[in-house]
Amino acid sequence: MLDITLLVFDRITALDALGPYEVLRRVPEARVRFAAPGLPTPVRDDGALVIQPHVAWEDVERTDVLLVPGGFGVRPLREDEAFLAHLRTLHETTRFTASVCTGALLLGAAGLLEGAPATTHWAYLDALAEYGATPREERVVEHGKILTGAGVSAGIDLALGLAARLADEATAQAIQLGIEYDPAPPFDAGAPGKAPAEVRAAAEARLAAGR
Amino acid sequence: MLDITLLVFDRITALDALGPYEVLRRVPEARVRFAAPGLPTPVRDDGALVIQPHVAWEDVERTDVLLVPGGFGVRPLREDEAFLAHLRTLHETTRFTASVCTGALLLGAAGLLEGAPATTHWAYLDALAEYGATPREERVVEHGKILTGAGVSAGIDLALGLAARLADEATAQAIQLGIEYDPAPPFDAGAPGKAPAEVRAAAEARLAAGR
Repeated sequence: MLDITLLVFDRITALDALGPYEVLRRVPEARVRFAAPGLPTPVRDDGALVIQPHVAWEDVERTDVLLVPGGFGVRPLREDEAFLAHLRTLHETTRFTASVCTGALLLGAAGLLEGAPATTHWAYLDALAEYGATPREERVVEHGKILTGAGVSAGIDLALGLAARLADEATAQAIQLGIEYDPAPPFDAGAPGKAPAEVRAAAEARLAAGR
Repeated sequence: MLDITLLVFDRITALDALGPYEVLRRVPEARVRFAAPGLPTPVRDDGALVIQPHVAWEDVERTDVLLVPGGFGVRPLREDEAFLAHLRTLHETTRFTASVCTGALLLGAAGLLEGAPATTHWAYLDALAEYGATPREERVVEHGKILTGAGVSAGIDLALGLAARLADEATAQAIQLGIEYDPAPPFDAGAPGKAPAEVRAAAEARLAAGR
């Protein structure tokens, strides 16, 4: 078995975890579990979604793959020393430790990105630098066994690359075809350098308002 | 308020619903609810995810937007006359009725695609024709107020186009930038015409095995 653990928490951005989930659960031999800090009681995103974890974060003793998503709920966890200590412990024996979006700030707060190239949601690249990481405006950054992805939807791209490393490229491609991931966004506004200034301002205002 | 109802059911493909969810919950004034046939008790996908619905499908009296996802759980629902009758009733007063992946087969079974161009997961285009629809190998097909999307991940593209119609293009673009949807798949195997033959065979074998 290949143990894959996805961290979940209150105020998670659901797609950060569930995009990769839909890819990683298709990797041969994968056993995917959601782990929540505290008791394994349901967590809630900023919308209408409730996720039922399988295990308490503190009870995960080791995992082959650890995926750390982002969301506004990252803020309290960044200052939770017990949480960060357990993240460091798990990371010691993972094959891969990955983050999506502001999940990278948790890797940073745990001291795992010191001197490492890494990425996160475009609006938080400066915050990443505060943890000693070298921010990269890239979709996915690999540094040894640490993979960091850009904002939210980047987790799907990250997970496909990870699937190829956990299995092989043909398997990852079969998964990609299975989820028909041949993206065709109706607009070309998905990166800060591509969006009109007023669209970027609107997106920043949403984030500042915690939405 | 803008009522958005996402159908959920056992053996749903989670990303079919949760990709669009992450977009649509950001539309101004949106109230998103998950509705499950039967009692509003948790449903389970083919992996490790449990989704808690807010309301029983039969208790939804009307909704502005109805989104019908796919998955292997579509099979029993295609033959559930009470379910299909309620789908027809809700569709009468929606502003938009949308499907992702094999959710289109439910629209078809309800008689909503008779003579209409529509799409679904690439492996199920023939099944769609059996309901009188004209299958299109496109990412998203719009036909009046009915929007159908291709497999799984196409729901994100569909939802961004829908967000533009529910609000406006600038809002949809701000949502796209918020979820940093600037996709960069590591492989170009996401459509049947792009994947190597052996990858397509592997993907078809997975589907045939119900995985």
